[in-house]
Amino acid sequence: MVSSSSLTEMLSSLLERQPFQRNTPIDGAVSALCIALLDAPSEASGLQLAEDILQTVKSQSEDDRDSFFHFLNDELDVDADRVLEMAKAYKEAPTPSTYAALAQAAEPKRQELFRKLNQASNATTDLVQLRAKLLKRMRDQPELGRTDRDLLHLFHSWFNRGFLVLRQITWESPASILEKIIAYEAVHEIQNWDDLRRRLLPADRKCFAFFHPAMPDEPLIFVEVALTKGIPDSIQSLLSEERQEHQAEATDTAVFYSISNCQAGLAGISFGNSLIKHVVRELSLEMPNLKRFVTLSPVPGLTHWAKKEGLARLPEDSQKLKQMAAHYLLDKKKSDGRPLDPVARFHLANGALVHKIHTDADVSEKGIAQAAGVMVNYLYDLPKISQNIELFDCNFEVAASSSVRALAKQANRAQAARTE
Amino acid sequence: MVSSSSLTEMLSSLLERQPFQRNTPIDGAVSALCIALLDAPSEASGLQLAEDILQTVKSQSEDDRDSFFHFLNDELDVDADRVLEMAKAYKEAPTPSTYAALAQAAEPKRQELFRKLNQASNATTDLVQLRAKLLKRMRDQPELGRTDRDLLHLFHSWFNRGFLVLRQITWESPASILEKIIAYEAVHEIQNWDDLRRRLLPADRKCFAFFHPAMPDEPLIFVEVALTKGIPDSIQSLLSEERQEHQAEATDTAVFYSISNCQAGLAGISFGNSLIKHVVRELSLEMPNLKRFVTLSPVPGLTHWAKKEGLARLPEDSQKLKQMAAHYLLDKKKSDGRPLDPVARFHLANGALVHKIHTDADVSEKGIAQAAGVMVNYLYDLPKISQNIELFDCNFEVAASSSVRALAKQANRAQAARTE
Amino acid sequence: MVSSSSLTEMLSSLLERQPFQRNTPIDGAVSALCIALLDAPSEASGLQLAEDILQTVKSQSEDDRDSFFHFLNDELDVDADRVLEMAKAYKEAPTPSTYAALAQAAEPKRQELFRKLNQASNATTDLVQLRAKLLKRMRDQPELGRTDRDLLHLFHSWFNRGFLVLRQITWESPASILEKIIAYEAVHEIQNWDDLRRRLLPADRKCFAFFHPAMPDEPLIFVEVALTKGIPDSIQSLLSEERQEHQAEATDTAVFYSISNCQAGLAGISFGNSLIKHVVRELSLEMPNLKRFVTLSPVPGLTHWAKKEGLARLPEDSQKLKQMAAHYLLDKKKSDGRPLDPVARFHLANGALVHKIHTDADVSEKGIAQAAGVMVNYLYDLPKISQNIELFDCNFEVAASSSVRALAKQANRAQAARTE
Amino acid sequence: MVSSSSLTEMLSSLLERQPFQRNTPIDGAVSALCIALLDAPSEASGLQLAEDILQTVKSQSEDDRDSFFHFLNDELDVDADRVLEMAKAYKEAPTPSTYAALAQAAEPKRQELFRKLNQASNATTDLVQLRAKLLKRMRDQPELGRTDRDLLHLFHSWFNRGFLVLRQITWESPASILEKIIAYEAVHEIQNWDDLRRRLLPADRKCFAFFHPAMPDEPLIFVEVALTKGIPDSIQSLLSEERQEHQAEATDTAVFYSISNCQAGLAGISFGNSLIKHVVRELSLEMPNLKRFVTLSPVPGLTHWAKKEGLARLPEDSQKLKQMAAHYLLDKKKSDGRPLDPVARFHLANGALVHKIHTDADVSEKGIAQAAGVMVNYLYDLPKISQNIELFDCNFEVAASSSVRALAKQANRAQAARTE
Repeated sequence: MVSSSSLTEMLSSLLERQPFQRNTPIDGAVSALCIALLDAPSEASGLQLAEDILQTVKSQSEDDRDSFFHFLNDELDVDADRVLEMAKAYKEAPTPSTYAALAQAAEPKRQELFRKLNQASNATTDLVQLRAKLLKRMRDQPELGRTDRDLLHLFHSWFNRGFLVLRQITWESPASILEKIIAYEAVHEIQNWDDLRRRLLPADRKCFAFFHPAMPDEPLIFVEVALTKGIPDSIQSLLSEERQEHQAEATDTAVFYSISNCQAGLAGISFGNSLIKHVVRELSLEMPNLKRFVTLSPVPGLTHWAKKEGLARLPEDSQKLKQMAAHYLLDKKKSDGRPLDPVARFHLANGALVHKIHTDADVSEKGIAQAAGVMVNYLYDLPKISQNIELFDCNFEVAASSSVRALAKQANRAQAARTE
Repeated sequence: MVSSSSLTEMLSSLLERQPFQRNTPIDGAVSALCIALLDAPSEASGLQLAEDILQTVKSQSEDDRDSFFHFLNDELDVDADRVLEMAKAYKEAPTPSTYAALAQAAEPKRQELFRKLNQASNATTDLVQLRAKLLKRMRDQPELGRTDRDLLHLFHSWFNRGFLVLRQITWESPASILEKIIAYEAVHEIQNWDDLRRRLLPADRKCFAFFHPAMPDEPLIFVEVALTKGIPDSIQSLLSEERQEHQAEATDTAVFYSISNCQAGLAGISFGNSLIKHVVRELSLEMPNLKRFVTLSPVPGLTHWAKKEGLARLPEDSQKLKQMAAHYLLDKKKSDGRPLDPVARFHLANGALVHKIHTDADVSEKGIAQAAGVMVNYLYDLPKISQNIELFDCNFEVAASSSVRALAKQANRAQAARTE
Repeated sequence: MVSSSSLTEMLSSLLERQPFQRNTPIDGAVSALCIALLDAPSEASGLQLAEDILQTVKSQSEDDRDSFFHFLNDELDVDADRVLEMAKAYKEAPTPSTYAALAQAAEPKRQELFRKLNQASNATTDLVQLRAKLLKRMRDQPELGRTDRDLLHLFHSWFNRGFLVLRQITWESPASILEKIIAYEAVHEIQNWDDLRRRLLPADRKCFAFFHPAMPDEPLIFVEVALTKGIPDSIQSLLSEERQEHQAEATDTAVFYSISNCQAGLAGISFGNSLIKHVVRELSLEMPNLKRFVTLSPVPGLTHWAKKEGLARLPEDSQKLKQMAAHYLLDKKKSDGRPLDPVARFHLANGALVHKIHTDADVSEKGIAQAAGVMVNYLYDLPKISQNIELFDCNFEVAASSSVRALAKQANRAQAARTE
Repeated sequence: MVSSSSLTEMLSSLLERQPFQRNTPIDGAVSALCIALLDAPSEASGLQLAEDILQTVKSQSEDDRDSFFHFLNDELDVDADRVLEMAKAYKEAPTPSTYAALAQAAEPKRQELFRKLNQASNATTDLVQLRAKLLKRMRDQPELGRTDRDLLHLFHSWFNRGFLVLRQITWESPASILEKIIAYEAVHEIQNWDDLRRRLLPADRKCFAFFHPAMPDEPLIFVEVALTKGIPDSIQSLLSEERQEHQAEATDTAVFYSISNCQAGLAGISFGNSLIKHVVRELSLEMPNLKRFVTLSPVPGLTHWAKKEGLARLPEDSQKLKQMAAHYLLDKKKSDGRPLDPVARFHLANGALVHKIHTDADVSEKGIAQAAGVMVNYLYDLPKISQNIELFDCNFEVAASSSVRALAKQANRAQAARTE
């Protein structure tokens, strides 16, 4: 065993002499460094190697990174033969040692590699960004999904809810965090710092984010909250510069009007559910004046679905548009039985119910395009959340207010009439 | 699916009616709760279950906990047949989906259970304490080692070095942390708060600990450091109440005189190496006056080894005692080739060398009993650490100063003379 | 003007040559340094001088310090002639410049000296400790009261309520602060760290202190609070190791059972009133379950007063003892009209009322000696506090519950009967 | 005495009935509240009054505020007759009590009022802003200078250097602080948040500010620092977006390129000297690589002086321009003997020397207008600072490098030649 720096030198000189390495010299070095890291017999020798690898990978050309991904996917894969052998041995004699042997055989080496890489400083952020790049490559190279499965598995363990930290984002927060809030807002764009201040500073505006201790400068997900009197029916009014501010104590409703995931590399790990639950708890403790928790949510799939159904365009009549939206949200399901609309899926699985449907509620270009201006309030009715979750868990039953139910029924009746 | 609280009720009433559950009603409930948690289709329904389970397990009787351990070990074990099947499928067609199926089959359900339990607040501490209890049971029931292997595997991932936080422990630290330092000090007992102050407050005393963000009140490991002029030769002088304090800038040596692991449930995960490395870096940045980093370490295995060798007691002559200690540390190895003495193993693997041997260095009862008063300085010689690690990694070559080498050689010669 | 260090040298060599300085060389140097500091034409040259002066004064012999005090008192006094002159000039022409001249003349130079000294690091603590020493000397040398008046005037300005910071003291607080809480507790001694933990850690115990930003390690005053069910009648029960702890939410009463001033050098500046007000506000916001705020207070002057009245000893009969205590608290006044008992004065001026009197309430040696075991609950009845303050401010009317009033009346009647 | 709220009511109703109050009802109320506050016999009754007064004053009309200022200036002024009387009494018998009486008489009541107002929360900020308004009024009404003298005297005591806190301003600082940095930068305007980030985020840029604990959100003064290789000769190059960033360790010079006072209400209290001293110490401890500390400073009075001297415009020739600037900085003095240029006065009094003069160094409109593009490096040469201060303190001797001296001499010679 040699030290990492002398090893790097050694490998470099070695590789120069080896003709088959010519085309991918850097990746050649990276894969060799990875093997060295996996073989490092003592903890003490691994750290520098880990830092070298992450540094190299960050500045790799795309081709080199491709080679690296395939090295991970193929060379550090699980050895099926060995798994078979160990599983048989375990079946015959299920002892701790045959068990350990099986467990080790069944875990691909890249898993251990990722763990060892994570010792380096700032490594978690690097690995999350590595997965973001991997996910992009998977569009063309689906076989890389094996490696992705292992990263996702690891991230599930590392980004376990128990490790997350809820922090309120305020106008007192570090600018370095705030500029990321501006960058990551995905639902209703934040134009600039003045716009951001309008969303953070007034007494009737709040923002909360989850962070992971190993990525203290990177929000994972955040939700923006407006405190209002009554339930809002338009995102433009809610965010208007001219709106009247309220004293926090004078409000009765907390409106979750935007939830944004921040890390492409953490796709597949759901934080939103937990975030909303924590924020509802936090707010209801702090402000007993709050009587209800609702969203003001887009209906991203409405136009798209209508087109598929053959409708050239959505009805202009407000009532009919609401009926159609209610029908879409309550009755239209994916093949697995869950609601067709992704935002509906999210809030319903969290225990909310479809409370109210508004037209002319988002008249931005995007709002008109995706749902003809329709928005929805999902209601988090605290005493009913558990029950809603159960019913949704059991048979994807969609909880809704009676008025929304009525709208959906009218739509069904109208449709029945048409198809008769 | 039902909510956790109504589920608990339901299960309780159910279990009462089921005769085979009669003997272990509580554990029966726990295992049922665990299965419910594993089956929970949505994240939203799991958290309360997780908290219920951890709460119950904490207050279980020993018998019930035994049943719980065996439930984990047997009922939530890996299914070897299914692993075989999936491994074959993967071998035939190594696609992402066959890979995911194999990976899932190869991971026992208890692993997923532990991850889900960890969502509850304070769960990480609970799980670490659960493993401490499991390790105790394993003395009689080694087959529980399978479950332990999974906990250890998970903890390796969670307590990854990249997630640890180094904090200096000072007289400004919270009393709630300090009382744990008093409780956990394993090498040279801290008598009381005055004694603790003497180890923290003077300018020539320091203490550093690793923490995990999910266990902010629990040190994982800590090291106590004395700043001295020259290398100390007696732990009693070093800790004497009458000693003369130095200005930190007037010292030239940092002495690691005590390293204590705090969490029995994290046995098998080594933090000491990394802690020493971080502290050396921290101190050398902060105090350029420090010229060397040494330990003042016990030789816990000396008397024990000598007895095994047939020596009724260690030599009284100081020189002969030093020779014997040098011989023991440098030449005596375990069957795997590593040094016999555990403290030597630790520091040598970290890249230190055996620098000097002192007699009358620990005249406490314990120090006399385990090593006739002998202590050792291991030296962390910064430019040589990498090389020492490599040599130790390769063939367990023990690095030592020339004077200690000479002592060992004299011992060998004397022995040779005797045995001739 | 010369730099402070060369000035020190210069002065030293100067003083050696001057015979009349021989006896008080150090103080000679100090007074010269003080004059140099007052004359320093630029800010830049003063800081080092200030540090030198404070350092010297700290380590002065008592004689030298006496000389220093008299230097301050006499040499840096106000010049009455100059005040007369400037007052006349101002009277004739009240312009900003004659005003400034008068203001400057009327302020003794020591006032400016203290302000300039305060630029040095940690100077505020040093000056507070200097006044503590001054106060001691004033017992024999009352004329030093002139200097004291200036320090007190300055401290009134610096320790203005608006600059104080309220901090909760918990078991998480730095040990360096906690050891001061142990040292400064003046009412019911804290035996050791275990005793301290019993007063901080349980959910039904709290402690709050005021700090000044320039003395972050020094509490100025602190109050210890017990949360109870009902109003306590014995300090020994309240502090008993065997007492049953309560959940904070299950309590209905906050008991201020000990208030301790920490800084002898801040005598004459009252923090207690403001502290209690802040703590009542803090607690009532945080715990809506609290229905009342009371004290469990000693009656330090009872025995002393009784002796003066010619009573050999207080009555053994519990009822008679209560009557006498009520009479003492409600009816006995100082010449200025305020209550005779100092603790009563404090709480009544803050707006509390005498709520209940207990016998056998403090059976410690001190409690028996000063009040035959009697203690009092003063009640802070939030809606009545303003009114109580007004009435007390107007004519020192003592607010009391009807039952305590009745006790006092019985005492008066009994006395009347006796004296008839 | 009545509580503040009922007092407010009482006063309001009272004032309505009093004809002479008709014209200034609000200020009438304020002055009455002020008198009530001064008379408040117990601490407990003052706080609410203080808050009411400050609240009212903040929202006063300009006329009402004028009345308030005159109330302070005239009604709460010192009583010269009483001062005369007390000074005589003190002269006759200088006891602590005659001293206290004199001291009290000599202090105008407004001084005590300001101290009592300062008990309210956020009062310090309010009082500082009040003085800012007072200073504006003094342009027309110089007699208000008496009141200003008292505020300034108080602020000298409150904003004593020992109470100030040095904080580094970084891109991690709260946005609420950073927006104030943008607003307060007085020397080289910060355009927007991107511009601010360029001055804070790069490794070779720093910013430090003084804060007062009672105004935690308000910087008092801040300095911007650039770390460079060599001494810069142009502010535009230094701040260019295209400039090359340096590793902090690779730099050798710290350049103070902008110092801005933030609080108009603290005019007359000098923080800059102390700030520079602290920052020099901070930086030299943290970065031993720094070899020198210089400014890149404007010469705000150059054009103005030249015009007064009768020069239509400054010379275009670079060398001649430098000579003239050197002559101006070194030889031109105010009537009190101090340098004519205000920036020169500031840095020379702090112990810096005139190191180098650059032309084309500030080609902004402002830079051309005030000094034809000339800028100066003042050098803080650590070992010489004390000596420079002494010499400047003694006889305003201007320290300068030999090259700048030579330039000034050439200018003198040229002038002499011209005038011969």
